[in-house]
Amino acid sequence: MEFTARQISDMLSGTVQGDSDVKVSRLSKIEEGVPGSLSFLANPKYTEFIYETKASVVIVGKDFIPEKHVAATLIKVEDAYAAFAKLLEIYHQIVRDKKGVEQPCFIDQSATTGIDIYVGAFAYVGKNAKIGNRVKLYPNSYVGDNVIIGDDTTLFPGVIVYSDCVIGKSCTLHAGVIIGADGFGFAPSAGSYNKVAQIGNVIIEDFVEIGSGTSIDRATLGSTTIHKGVKLDNLIQIAHNVEIGENTVIAAQTGIAGSTKIGKDCMIGGQVGIVGHLTIADNTKIAAQSGVGTSVTEPGQIIQGSPAFSISDYRRTYVVFKKLPDLDKKIQELEKALAEIRQTIS
Amino acid sequence: MEFTARQISDMLSGTVQGDSDVKVSRLSKIEEGVPGSLSFLANPKYTEFIYETKASVVIVGKDFIPEKHVAATLIKVEDAYAAFAKLLEIYHQIVRDKKGVEQPCFIDQSATTGIDIYVGAFAYVGKNAKIGNRVKLYPNSYVGDNVIIGDDTTLFPGVIVYSDCVIGKSCTLHAGVIIGADGFGFAPSAGSYNKVAQIGNVIIEDFVEIGSGTSIDRATLGSTTIHKGVKLDNLIQIAHNVEIGENTVIAAQTGIAGSTKIGKDCMIGGQVGIVGHLTIADNTKIAAQSGVGTSVTEPGQIIQGSPAFSISDYRRTYVVFKKLPDLDKKIQELEKALAEIRQTIS
Amino acid sequence: MEFTARQISDMLSGTVQGDSDVKVSRLSKIEEGVPGSLSFLANPKYTEFIYETKASVVIVGKDFIPEKHVAATLIKVEDAYAAFAKLLEIYHQIVRDKKGVEQPCFIDQSATTGIDIYVGAFAYVGKNAKIGNRVKLYPNSYVGDNVIIGDDTTLFPGVIVYSDCVIGKSCTLHAGVIIGADGFGFAPSAGSYNKVAQIGNVIIEDFVEIGSGTSIDRATLGSTTIHKGVKLDNLIQIAHNVEIGENTVIAAQTGIAGSTKIGKDCMIGGQVGIVGHLTIADNTKIAAQSGVGTSVTEPGQIIQGSPAFSISDYRRTYVVFKKLPDLDKKIQELEKALAEIRQTIS
Repeated sequence: MEFTARQISDMLSGTVQGDSDVKVSRLSKIEEGVPGSLSFLANPKYTEFIYETKASVVIVGKDFIPEKHVAATLIKVEDAYAAFAKLLEIYHQIVRDKKGVEQPCFIDQSATTGIDIYVGAFAYVGKNAKIGNRVKLYPNSYVGDNVIIGDDTTLFPGVIVYSDCVIGKSCTLHAGVIIGADGFGFAPSAGSYNKVAQIGNVIIEDFVEIGSGTSIDRATLGSTTIHKGVKLDNLIQIAHNVEIGENTVIAAQTGIAGSTKIGKDCMIGGQVGIVGHLTIADNTKIAAQSGVGTSVTEPGQIIQGSPAFSISDYRRTYVVFKKLPDLDKKIQELEKALAEIRQTIS
Repeated sequence: MEFTARQISDMLSGTVQGDSDVKVSRLSKIEEGVPGSLSFLANPKYTEFIYETKASVVIVGKDFIPEKHVAATLIKVEDAYAAFAKLLEIYHQIVRDKKGVEQPCFIDQSATTGIDIYVGAFAYVGKNAKIGNRVKLYPNSYVGDNVIIGDDTTLFPGVIVYSDCVIGKSCTLHAGVIIGADGFGFAPSAGSYNKVAQIGNVIIEDFVEIGSGTSIDRATLGSTTIHKGVKLDNLIQIAHNVEIGENTVIAAQTGIAGSTKIGKDCMIGGQVGIVGHLTIADNTKIAAQSGVGTSVTEPGQIIQGSPAFSISDYRRTYVVFKKLPDLDKKIQELEKALAEIRQTIS
Repeated sequence: MEFTARQISDMLSGTVQGDSDVKVSRLSKIEEGVPGSLSFLANPKYTEFIYETKASVVIVGKDFIPEKHVAATLIKVEDAYAAFAKLLEIYHQIVRDKKGVEQPCFIDQSATTGIDIYVGAFAYVGKNAKIGNRVKLYPNSYVGDNVIIGDDTTLFPGVIVYSDCVIGKSCTLHAGVIIGADGFGFAPSAGSYNKVAQIGNVIIEDFVEIGSGTSIDRATLGSTTIHKGVKLDNLIQIAHNVEIGENTVIAAQTGIAGSTKIGKDCMIGGQVGIVGHLTIADNTKIAAQSGVGTSVTEPGQIIQGSPAFSISDYRRTYVVFKKLPDLDKKIQELEKALAEIRQTIS
């Protein structure tokens, strides 16, 4: 794909400064620009690069005034970063525009499928499954019996959705995501364990993105629920009957134990652990590697530690933690000094 | 599937109180009951719901005496929770009763297979593999050369069992489980590393359940062994030559390094790390996020921390940790006070 | 496969002491030797076993002088461990010598493939992909559009390589490895998030081994790069635009956030977390479960803790941490004693 500076400027409602006929066929960082590439300048820290970049076209903010000669054609827009992100998105859509049904795949005859779908080879669609319009099921993905998948959702290769789960519209499930495996429920019985059957499901609402290798277990009864707009990174563990509120974002390798309810608009760092049956208030922020052992009832708090408490307290505490050997020595000196004083005054 | 209250009561050896012909077709929590659903009351905290539930049938303990009007038909049993768990299990078995061989799948002609098996489309069975009776190999699962899989074991979609591994009877391996990948063994050699070939295998005994995305590496020589009745949650890492004793339960995202031996009946929390070449005694409990760096020789201990020590000591220590800034201030004040006294008495 | 002691001795340039015609068909640990097995003695701690082992042949160092009768045939070599590792490797190569194309598989007609490759059933090769010589694509592996895979590289079952990624020569990707899923990039927008399209790729250089379930995300722009000789254990998370230097080794379940650059020859323990946009100097060692929040600028340091600092300081600090309740008590006693002294001298 090759575009002229003018064509791109038109897509972005921008104005061209320089050669509007120069052609670009790829995107690059400004410091790695090459002839034929398109870049952008949004962060002032990178301004120096615009005078040396070999990129043919650079998107800049409308207020950018060069202080030296710029070889590249400039496209001036309202917000350079947003404009570039829009271009990335357009590029992405073109690259990932897969359609059609590759063979062999397996679609049970009782399943229903929408229009303009992509079904890769070795993809599997079980009994009574409902596949929406423009859904993409990449190769080796698995859609169990009775599963519903909303319009415009993509399952990358190797995604597995167990029976009876529901995936919303415009969701992206990356490779290796597993939805609806059994929750970890066992009842002790005479020295060993009996499995507690897990007959609930998982409901994932619209506009959710889930990173590679993340597992979301089905509920024992009822549903494990991931609300609208949630973004989950890679290798996250979500246990049975958990609920995650709208637009909450969770970084990689975090684990949430059974029946915990996470509020809306939370930001949870990587490798965090949250124990079961808690409630985490809306807008809570949790620092990476924290362990949360009690509910967070007041919205908007920031916590850290294992067990976690207020991040500002944690940081002040950790400063003292690092000088503990000194403190230990000081206490010994104090004890010695005190003993001497006692002797003196006795 | 639809059952009358009487039919269910008969399955559970219970007695019906109310309309024994009312029909139910689904299971629900008592607080989420709807007409046609069957629920249970086991936890006294939920007793209030029985007077308002819309569930058609509720299973209760034999000693339950309503204090108000109950609309639902009651089934009285010895233990309401156990009875409900039994129903869940029956339901599960019906829902997951898959049989037959879907096409295309790949079964090497040298492999042997038992009766009443399920082989999903795109499942793979390698050379000389032995598949027991009533085994279920879901779509996209992989059984390597010479693998043995015992009767009544289920491999959910995308499970991968490398060559030469042995899986016992009545095991459940959830989606994305990987058994028998190479252990992480490299010998330094002139600035880089030579791989140490891993030619052992993994042996998983009977009644083991393994959660989605969990990896168990093959031994360098000999076997990585998971004994009878072990329950592993999701995204757990078990390194080469590890041994896990009977009925030990491990929560999600825990990692156990090479050659460590875990005893029987242990309970290990989530996100725990255990270093290699240790021995953990029977009945040890390890709190979530702990790091275990030395062997636990005395059975029945409970430990926490990174590195971990006695949980009661850890908790007392953490109370003081949280007030470290105060302690620091107190020590400064003590030093100042002492200096003043010295001046006074000198 | 069966070999005589002499044949093995010849492979290893050793000398036989005992019956050079005795045959062996398997490898074992010396303490688990059985007739027909071949073992080795490298660690002096295991010397006692050589006098009792039932192994038919034992490889020993050239300086080994038995102090008692040894029943096994001995093969004397320069370095017993290295010789045994070489045998393991030969054995491995024989066992894993798969060739040919199993059906059904999916190879797009625009893809190119080298000689002596193995393509398992249900493996997928996308448009314009380039598969080198002697590459092994196990069943259910997925190679996206435009992917390049170098000679002698193995993708075990269920490996997924997204479009446009590049894998070097002689790499091993274990089951469930995911290369090139989207980086976790979202821009806040009016209470929810817009996805930042991730159009870069992943480049994996030669001689890299990656453990099962590990995920390496593609770059937003440019490349996430894993340099030559890197060894990654299982269930590791590598975020977008990360760079890992030559011959660095990382243990299981570690996570590295976006744009961080790890130097050469580092050794990173299990369950470590490293935040984004940092630089970690060459030869850095990081203890398991540490959290790294700031760049490490001086090469050769060893760090621990969350946040991490010098391991020797951490250890001294943790000794004091464990006696915090005592310290707390001592401070209270000091305060009390001081108050008494004040009263005495006032």
